[in-house]
Amino acid sequence: MSPPVPPRSLASITLPRGFTAAGGICGIKASGKPDLAVIAADRPVPAAGVFTKNKIKGEPVKVAMRHLRGGHLRAIVVNSGCSNVATGKPGERDAVEMCRIAAEHLGCQTRQVVPCSTGVIGRPLPMDKVGPGIGQVIAKLSRGKQPDSDAATAILTTDLVPKVAKTTITLGGKKVTLGGICKGSGMIAPNMATMLAFITTDANITPALLKSSLRAAVNASFNRVTVDTDTSTSDSVIVMASGAAEHRIIAARGKQYDTFVAGLTEVCQQLAYQLVRDGEGANKVFRVNVIGGKSEKDADKAGRAVAESPLVKTAVHGGDPNWGRLAMAVGKSGARFDPGRLKLSIAGTAVYKQGLPINMTPAVTAKLEKAMAKEQIDIGIDLGAGEAEVVWMGCDLSREYIAINADYTT
Amino acid sequence: MSPPVPPRSLASITLPRGFTAAGGICGIKASGKPDLAVIAADRPVPAAGVFTKNKIKGEPVKVAMRHLRGGHLRAIVVNSGCSNVATGKPGERDAVEMCRIAAEHLGCQTRQVVPCSTGVIGRPLPMDKVGPGIGQVIAKLSRGKQPDSDAATAILTTDLVPKVAKTTITLGGKKVTLGGICKGSGMIAPNMATMLAFITTDANITPALLKSSLRAAVNASFNRVTVDTDTSTSDSVIVMASGAAEHRIIAARGKQYDTFVAGLTEVCQQLAYQLVRDGEGANKVFRVNVIGGKSEKDADKAGRAVAESPLVKTAVHGGDPNWGRLAMAVGKSGARFDPGRLKLSIAGTAVYKQGLPINMTPAVTAKLEKAMAKEQIDIGIDLGAGEAEVVWMGCDLSREYIAINADYTT
Repeated sequence: MSPPVPPRSLASITLPRGFTAAGGICGIKASGKPDLAVIAADRPVPAAGVFTKNKIKGEPVKVAMRHLRGGHLRAIVVNSGCSNVATGKPGERDAVEMCRIAAEHLGCQTRQVVPCSTGVIGRPLPMDKVGPGIGQVIAKLSRGKQPDSDAATAILTTDLVPKVAKTTITLGGKKVTLGGICKGSGMIAPNMATMLAFITTDANITPALLKSSLRAAVNASFNRVTVDTDTSTSDSVIVMASGAAEHRIIAARGKQYDTFVAGLTEVCQQLAYQLVRDGEGANKVFRVNVIGGKSEKDADKAGRAVAESPLVKTAVHGGDPNWGRLAMAVGKSGARFDPGRLKLSIAGTAVYKQGLPINMTPAVTAKLEKAMAKEQIDIGIDLGAGEAEVVWMGCDLSREYIAINADYTT
Repeated sequence: MSPPVPPRSLASITLPRGFTAAGGICGIKASGKPDLAVIAADRPVPAAGVFTKNKIKGEPVKVAMRHLRGGHLRAIVVNSGCSNVATGKPGERDAVEMCRIAAEHLGCQTRQVVPCSTGVIGRPLPMDKVGPGIGQVIAKLSRGKQPDSDAATAILTTDLVPKVAKTTITLGGKKVTLGGICKGSGMIAPNMATMLAFITTDANITPALLKSSLRAAVNASFNRVTVDTDTSTSDSVIVMASGAAEHRIIAARGKQYDTFVAGLTEVCQQLAYQLVRDGEGANKVFRVNVIGGKSEKDADKAGRAVAESPLVKTAVHGGDPNWGRLAMAVGKSGARFDPGRLKLSIAGTAVYKQGLPINMTPAVTAKLEKAMAKEQIDIGIDLGAGEAEVVWMGCDLSREYIAINADYTT
C-alpha cells in the first residue's frame, strides 16, 4: 500500500487577494479532529457553484443552490463529521442557521453565506456545538499558510491528506491568482456524503461568466475522475472572485475569458488528481487519454468506461498490461467507432490495432509490466473516428476499498 | 467464503425431446479439464440467438450471428479454454472450420451449426486439437443426465459449479419442456470472454417468434443481472426448438406465445441466478425489486444503479443495512422520481420514506442486520412515480474478486 503524499505547502485559498480563512474544532467529530472551516471574502464578491446531479440532494446543497442565485457571496461555512443529508426540513433549517450565525459575525446577509456539510448521513447537526464554533472560527480569520492549512484540514473525513491547488495567470497585464482546497476519498466514503471543493481568485469577472467558467472547468476535471462510479448527495464546488487583481472586468467571452477558464481548469484538475490519488484504498492513479472521438461525448463515454471498469481497475492494481480488458471497456462504452480502427497503448507503447494485439514480444511485455508497476499509468485510446479528445482519471481497485466499505459498518 | 452449491441433478438440455448432447476433453486447457461440448438437434430446427452488445465482438460471435440468419440450426459446438477473440480473419476462419467439421460428422450444412468459444482472449484456437475433438464428442452424442452433465461441465472456465435449468409448460394440451445450461463467473473473468447460455425445447414455434421470445426472456433475466458491470465480447444465448411436443405451431402472438415466453423466461432466470451466485468472489446474491417506475426504463435504471453500485455491493458483503447508499444509488440512476415519494425497504422492513430514515429502533436495526447476514437479500425500491416494475440481481463485492482479477495476471 502506497499512501498519497501531502502537498509540500498548503498555501492556497488566501493567496488570491481579498480572502481570509480559518479552521478549528467545534466538537462534531468524536475523534476531536478539526471539523469546522470558514472561507471569507473581504466583501460580497461574485461567486458561483456547481452541485451534485444526484436527485437526492443534501439539505445544505439545497440551501447553497438557493443562496447562490444572487451570484454574490461573502463566505462559505463548512463542517465535517456530519453531512446533514436525509434530515428533512429540520436539517434544512439547521443549514440556514449556520449561514445566519456566520452572517451575524461577519456583518452581512444570511443569503450571502453558503453552508456545506460532509460526513455521516441521516443524523442531525449538533447545532449546540456548530453555533458557537462558527463564531470562534470567524474570530481567527486571517491570511497565510496556517489558516489555509487549518481550513484544508478541517473539511476532511476519511481522506488521508489535505488537498490544495494554486496557479497564476495574467489578465490585462495584471497577475491573477487562483487557489483551491477540496476533500473527498470515495465519491461516497463510508456513509459519508462527500466531495467538496472551494476555490478563490482575485480575478475580476461577472457572476454569470464566473458560473459558466466554473461549469467548463468542472466538466474537464471533477466530472472526469472516478473513484468508484458512485455520486454523492453532497458534491459541491464553489468559486469566489474578489476582483482585487484590478484588471478590466471580464464581462464577455473572448481571450481574457478563455485564459481565466484555463487557469480555473488547471486548479480544478490539480484538486481532482489529488482526490483520485487519495481515493479509498487507492495505490495508483491511471490517466485515460482518449483521442479520435467522433464527438466529445463519444470520447467521454470511452474514457469513462475505461476509468470505471472494475476489470481495468483490478488490472491496474495487479500491474497487468491487460489490453483485452481495455478493448472490452471501450467496446461496451457506447462510443461510436469502427472496431477495426481502434488503437490502444499503455505508457506510450502500442498494444492493439486493427482488432489484433501487437508488439507482444517478451521484451515489450517486460517493458509494459514495468510501466504498469508505476504509481501513475498512462493509457492511450485512439477511437479513429474524429478529432475529439478527453482525459479521464481513475484509481486502482484494491482490497483496502473493500475493507473500508464493507468491514467498518456504520 | 460461502461457495455456490452445484444443482442436485444436471438433467437439462436433453430433457426436451429431439436433442442429444455430449462433452469431452480435446486438450485446449492445460489443466486437462473438459473443454469441448456439442448440443445437437435430431434434424435442423428453429433456433434463435442474442449476442453481446459490445462493439468488439469475438470472431465466433460474428460467425454465429451470420449462421443464425437462416433461423434454423442442427447443432451448437462449444469450446472453453480459448475464446478466439481478437484473432482477426484467421480466427474467423477457425470458427467456421469448427462448424464445417461438426456439419461433416452430423451430415448437415456448415451454416446449420454455430460455434461458441470462451476462455483466454487474443490467442489462436489450437485447431489440431479442436478438429479431432469435435468428431470424438459427436460420436458420444446421447440423451440423459450424463451427457447433459458432461456438456454443462465442458463449457466452464473460472466457474465453480455447472449451471442448469429446466421447466415445463402446457401448450395446446401438450406438455412442453425447456432445458438450459450456461457458464459465466465475471461478465468477463480473468482475460476470459465470458457468458454463454444454451437452451433447448420441444416446443413448436416459428423462427421469428422464437427470436422475439428469446429477446423478451433475456431482457428479463440475463440483461438484469450484474457481477461487475463489464460486458464480455463473447456473450451468447442460443435457443433451439425441436417441435417434438407436437402441439399446433405457435405462428402468431397470443396466449400460447405468452405461455412460451413465460417458460423461456423462467429457464433464463434460473440460469441467470446461478450465474450471479457463482459470480467472481461472490458470497451473496441480492435481489433489487423495483416498483412504482414511471416507465419500465426508469425502473430499470434504478434497479441497475443499485445492483451495480460498488458501495451497495460492499455493504451487502459487510452485512450493513446501509439505506444511505441505496438512496444515493437510486438518486444517481437517472430514473424519474420525486425524492419525497421514494420508499426503501430491506427484507420487507421499511427503512426510508419522505426523505428520512424510518424505523431505526435498536430492535429493527438488529433485525435488519440479521437479514443482511443471509446469503440472499431482498431490497425494495418504490419510486412512487407509476406502475412499472423490474427485478435486478447482483452479488457482493469481496476481496476474492480483487484477488481473482488483480493477483493472477495473465
